[in-house]
Amino acid sequence: MTSKAVDYVQAHREAMLDELNEFLTIKSISSLSEHKQDVAEAASWLERQLLHAGLEKVEIIPTAKHPVVYGEWLKAGDEAKTILVYGHYDVQPVDPLHLWETDPFEPTIRENKLYARGASDDKGQTFMHIKAVEAMLKSEGALPFNIKFLIEGEEEIGSPNLDAFVEKEKERLAADVLVISDTPMLEAGRPAICTGLRGLAAMELTVKGAKGDLHSGLYGGAVPNSLHALVELLASFRNEAGEIAISGFYDGIEALADEEKESLAALGSGDDSMKSETGVSALVGEEGYSSRERTWIRPTLELNGVFGGFQGEGVKTVIPAEATAKISCRLVPGQDPDDILNKIEQHINTHTPKGVTVTTHRHDTGKPFAAPVTDPAFAAAARAYEKVYKTEVAYTRMGGSIPVVETFDAQLHVPIVLMGFGLPSENFHAPNEHFHLENFDKGLETILAFWQEYSKLS
Amino acid sequence: MTSKAVDYVQAHREAMLDELNEFLTIKSISSLSEHKQDVAEAASWLERQLLHAGLEKVEIIPTAKHPVVYGEWLKAGDEAKTILVYGHYDVQPVDPLHLWETDPFEPTIRENKLYARGASDDKGQTFMHIKAVEAMLKSEGALPFNIKFLIEGEEEIGSPNLDAFVEKEKERLAADVLVISDTPMLEAGRPAICTGLRGLAAMELTVKGAKGDLHSGLYGGAVPNSLHALVELLASFRNEAGEIAISGFYDGIEALADEEKESLAALGSGDDSMKSETGVSALVGEEGYSSRERTWIRPTLELNGVFGGFQGEGVKTVIPAEATAKISCRLVPGQDPDDILNKIEQHINTHTPKGVTVTTHRHDTGKPFAAPVTDPAFAAAARAYEKVYKTEVAYTRMGGSIPVVETFDAQLHVPIVLMGFGLPSENFHAPNEHFHLENFDKGLETILAFWQEYSKLS
Repeated sequence: MTSKAVDYVQAHREAMLDELNEFLTIKSISSLSEHKQDVAEAASWLERQLLHAGLEKVEIIPTAKHPVVYGEWLKAGDEAKTILVYGHYDVQPVDPLHLWETDPFEPTIRENKLYARGASDDKGQTFMHIKAVEAMLKSEGALPFNIKFLIEGEEEIGSPNLDAFVEKEKERLAADVLVISDTPMLEAGRPAICTGLRGLAAMELTVKGAKGDLHSGLYGGAVPNSLHALVELLASFRNEAGEIAISGFYDGIEALADEEKESLAALGSGDDSMKSETGVSALVGEEGYSSRERTWIRPTLELNGVFGGFQGEGVKTVIPAEATAKISCRLVPGQDPDDILNKIEQHINTHTPKGVTVTTHRHDTGKPFAAPVTDPAFAAAARAYEKVYKTEVAYTRMGGSIPVVETFDAQLHVPIVLMGFGLPSENFHAPNEHFHLENFDKGLETILAFWQEYSKLS
Repeated sequence: MTSKAVDYVQAHREAMLDELNEFLTIKSISSLSEHKQDVAEAASWLERQLLHAGLEKVEIIPTAKHPVVYGEWLKAGDEAKTILVYGHYDVQPVDPLHLWETDPFEPTIRENKLYARGASDDKGQTFMHIKAVEAMLKSEGALPFNIKFLIEGEEEIGSPNLDAFVEKEKERLAADVLVISDTPMLEAGRPAICTGLRGLAAMELTVKGAKGDLHSGLYGGAVPNSLHALVELLASFRNEAGEIAISGFYDGIEALADEEKESLAALGSGDDSMKSETGVSALVGEEGYSSRERTWIRPTLELNGVFGGFQGEGVKTVIPAEATAKISCRLVPGQDPDDILNKIEQHINTHTPKGVTVTTHRHDTGKPFAAPVTDPAFAAAARAYEKVYKTEVAYTRMGGSIPVVETFDAQLHVPIVLMGFGLPSENFHAPNEHFHLENFDKGLETILAFWQEYSKLS
């Protein structure tokens, strides 16, 4: 079967890229309420795509915020395997817009790379699975397995409604394997299966000083400045060893199994590629760990946004009454997001500078995930990758978070194969996000090969 | 004479307030280039006002940025005294706009206070001098002194072009006394003559980390975050004793004369009024000094604006590539603004965290000013205040800066009487700036009384 499907994919490459471009022009930024309609439009677009691919039944299911798109083809029957594919059609905001070389919602190909917000994370990768089904159904007329698609619109805001959905729809989502393409390859030419994801705990804190902005001449030097207080508070979050200085932050972190330690060490420190990908002259972080360890198996606290006072051109000699910071932590197995947010709030309470008040607002959280790779589905995925990429697959962890993965693990009790086709250099969440079309082509072939391998398993 | 002029002022109060409202609707924000035309419009408005008041000759004189408005009435002859009045018609920006109860450029009276940007600083106070001249000329037909007006449009951006103008126009500006109303009274009902102003040194610094914004999951914990570096750098500017921790910052500060120390001590710490005016629960600042000392005779470094990363609604898990801070220092006699900016840059160079670069951009500066009060003009001003306000005048210093005062001092060698009518609580530079109309009325009377007292001096 795969050969015909591969032929179909190759013959329809241009048309498929045109469709992907259409998908990428939809501004489905889930975090910004002004884009609510765009998010809904992306869901409708997916519904049409899934029907066009040949799925039997497709449904847009509303949630408290953005809808879930569900589709299924179950004609292989009860005896056959069932594959569940998860992806997301929402994207990150695009600011700072001036750093994009081309408009984030006008997809552009340069040097065989497709530039657009969502090209890699995750519209492009989700789209590949739909096209793989289309290729098989159009070229073969049927699949040797059942398939279900669950594509959500809230991944970039921490999937606030998907947990409840998965719990409620456990039976409809039942499958033998869950496949997700939303993690990066190790590097160009070197595919990876991801065995662990960091969790997420995000919050916003606002410092308030005087009842209004003040003249820095008349009050400067005597009245609390919200920005100074914020800076002092934020600086207290880390110590000189690059550790997070929040009491109890590292408590309970699970040690790595010996094999995992070895496999991690075999991949090297990652320092050089981290420097060249990001263009920095020096790396920072927790003393005693390599870059790979710092981003894969150690937790972090990062400032994502800080703002207060005058941002215009020139000078405004003001003492700002209010200043805000947005922070997020990446967590590793053994840490609980709510517990971490409690500890941060406790730290804020005990470190708030004199004369100001601090209020916090919690954002959504996601639990960390890690699973041993024992199910034969992993070996099938590895064989598929190796067949197409002609090299050994790497088993990695990912520093990023896909909060719902832990929920799938807890609710569906199904092996979760995180087989991504993005590259770490593709600027996820940043200006000039792009997707290497080489991995669009090879990825499609790998997905087809994996399904062939997987459906052969007894 | 004064009695007729006072009658005139009282009879025309409503018309004068209507004219002031007209002046206050002009959005003459000198720091924002999109308001260049508004600044020019304010200059034209003043030209018409000065001619209407009865000045002989009025001129709008262009500079490299915003024009100077000059006007004179010299018919009292060579034997009579000449008074030079300085003021400014430009205003501060108005953000954060949402904190204004009414539009900053739609003047509104509430409880006998006029709310508008510039109501007190300095359109309202400059306007009073023009109206005092009008009252005398319309009611008496002549003045017993010569008068010159110099009204600039760049005070709020540090008067970048006025130094050169004053130097070039020394002869045209020659006078026996310079009067400026741009400083606050001590408190409601207690007028003050200001004998010293703090200088200003402002700069902006930008931290750059990675070549673009990064995904905090993939790079968090290992790659320099511009916001963390900025926070660390900014926190290093102060120590735990509330002192500015920049090497050499306090070098060369002139000690206060004994009489000034005593007169300052007699006014009290100022702590209670500082707290009630600003609504803070505790004051901060350099240990060992009272609030009054911290704001009048000690230098400061304040953060006026900090921004970097995501500022939108919700979460964006990004490591920002770039973050900026705007800072300004208030300086006291013995400190030089350029020297202070050098020292800050030196501090930045030696404290820049690993893996990031910092660039600085200097804004305009102003030298501090302090002068002994020996000229009889001061006693005349004190008598005028005491006559109208029925209380002893306070000799104060001001924490704010009027950079050009030091230039006037150096170039014109003339006593400078800083007799203001604003109150410290009137939100200069902040939302809901206002002007107590009680001091509009009494202030006009005080100006007329001062001119009468002054012109009697031999």
